[in-house]
Amino acid sequence: MKKKLKKVNAAILIIGDEILSGRTQDKNVAFISEWLNSQCGISVQEVRVVQDNQKVIIKNVINLSRKYNYLFTTGGIGPTHDDMTSESISKAFKVKYEIHKKAYKILENYYGKSEFNDSRKKMAKLPRGSKLILNPSSAAPGYKIKNVFVLPGVPPILQSMIDNCKPLLLKGSKILSRTLNLFTVESKIAIDLERIQNKFEKNVKIGSYPFFRLGKVGVSVVIRSTNYRSLNKSYLELIKRIKLNKIKILSF
Amino acid sequence: MKKKLKKVNAAILIIGDEILSGRTQDKNVAFISEWLNSQCGISVQEVRVVQDNQKVIIKNVINLSRKYNYLFTTGGIGPTHDDMTSESISKAFKVKYEIHKKAYKILENYYGKSEFNDSRKKMAKLPRGSKLILNPSSAAPGYKIKNVFVLPGVPPILQSMIDNCKPLLLKGSKILSRTLNLFTVESKIAIDLERIQNKFEKNVKIGSYPFFRLGKVGVSVVIRSTNYRSLNKSYLELIKRIKLNKIKILSF
Repeated sequence: MKKKLKKVNAAILIIGDEILSGRTQDKNVAFISEWLNSQCGISVQEVRVVQDNQKVIIKNVINLSRKYNYLFTTGGIGPTHDDMTSESISKAFKVKYEIHKKAYKILENYYGKSEFNDSRKKMAKLPRGSKLILNPSSAAPGYKIKNVFVLPGVPPILQSMIDNCKPLLLKGSKILSRTLNLFTVESKIAIDLERIQNKFEKNVKIGSYPFFRLGKVGVSVVIRSTNYRSLNKSYLELIKRIKLNKIKILSF
Repeated sequence: MKKKLKKVNAAILIIGDEILSGRTQDKNVAFISEWLNSQCGISVQEVRVVQDNQKVIIKNVINLSRKYNYLFTTGGIGPTHDDMTSESISKAFKVKYEIHKKAYKILENYYGKSEFNDSRKKMAKLPRGSKLILNPSSAAPGYKIKNVFVLPGVPPILQSMIDNCKPLLLKGSKILSRTLNLFTVESKIAIDLERIQNKFEKNVKIGSYPFFRLGKVGVSVVIRSTNYRSLNKSYLELIKRIKLNKIKILSF
C-alpha cells in the first residue's frame, strides 16, 4: 500500500447514449462507489453521464481529472464506431492514440491470429503511456493514464476487473458508517438530526432516507465519518434522542 | 400541446449523498429519460449526480439550466437538514426562498393543523415564482421554476408525479428507434455498422450494446432517429448486411 492521504476523492464518468436514453439501467455507479468506499477509503464526489461524442468526452475528462484525485470512466472501449473513449482521452491529454504492444499481444492470444480482425485491433489502441488493467473475463484490457482509470461499460466485466485497480490507487482514511432504521417519518426526527449534525459539524455527515417496508413508512438514518470516536458519540446521542421520543427502532 | 420545437433537450441533476456513496441504486435517471423520450420527444443529453451541498447544487443548477432546454432535479426537497435543493435553487436564480401559499395549504390539509410541524412547513418553502407540480402520493409538491423541474428523490413518489410535468413542457419531435438483437459479437459487425452510420451521418444514430443471454453472447443494435424514412432505410440496409454475413437474428 502506498502513502496514506487523509482524504482521497474521485469522480465517475459514465459514457454511453444507452444510459442517457433510459434504455439501459446503469449499475456501475453504485458498484464503483461502494468498492472505492469500502476497499480504498475513497469517496466519490461527482458522477456525470455523457453522450458518445468526442468533444463532450474530452471536455469532461479534462474537467473532472483536474477537479478530483481520480477519475473512473466506464464505457466506450469496445470495437464499434460508437466506442470513442480511448481516442478522446488521448486528445484530452494530448498524447498519441496508438497500438499498445502488450494489449495487442493479449488480444491476439485471446482471439487467435486468424480471428484478430481490424475491429478487434481497435481495442489495443490506447493513449500512449497507459498502464494496463487486466480483464480476466473477456481479455480486452482497461487502463490507467495519469489519474484516470478507464473501464468497460458491461457491469460483469467491469466487476471482474476492479480489484486490479487497487495496487494503482492511493488509499484514504476509511469512511465508517452506522445506520439506524426507524419506524417513523422524517419530519418527526428532523430537528434532532439537525441539532446533532450541527454539534458534530465537520466530523460527521448525517443523512436521512425514507423507505417503504411491510406496508409502513420508515427512515434510514446514516451517519458517516472517518473518525471512529465522533461516529460513535454522534450515534449514541442519536439513540438517546430516539428513545426519548419513543420512536420504534426497526434495526441497527 | 404547445408550439412544436424540432429538437428539445434536457439534463438531469440527481442530488444526494446516498447515490454517490453507492448506498442507494439510482432509478430515476432511466425512468425520467425514458418518460421524456417516449412522452415528450425530449432527449436527455447529460446527467450529473452531486452531493448535498449548497454551493455545489447552485453551481450545477446555473450551469445545466443555461446549457439545456430543461433541467430536472431529483432529491433534497424533504423536511430534514440534508434537504437543501429549494434553498439552493432560490439562490441560483436570486429569488426569495419563502412559504408558497398553495403548497402550505396542501400540506396543512394533508397533515392536519396539529401535526403540521416546523419540519413539515419547510416543504412549503420554495423559490418565489414556482409553479406547483402536484404529488398524489404524499402531498409535498414538486415545482417548476424557470426551465427547472424540481422533483423528489423517492422513485415511486417521483413516478406518481411525472405526468403532471407534461402540460408545462414543450414537445420535441418524437425520437423513433428500432432494435435488432443478434447472436454475434460486436467485432463481427463493427465495419458494417460504421459504414451505415457514416452513410446516414446526421439523420440516425446507431449504437451497439453487448448482452449475455441463454449462455451466449449477443449484441443489441439500436438505431435512433426523429426521421421515419431515414430510420427505415438504415434499418433495411442493416438487415441486408446481417443476412449477407449469415448472422443469426434473435429478435427484432
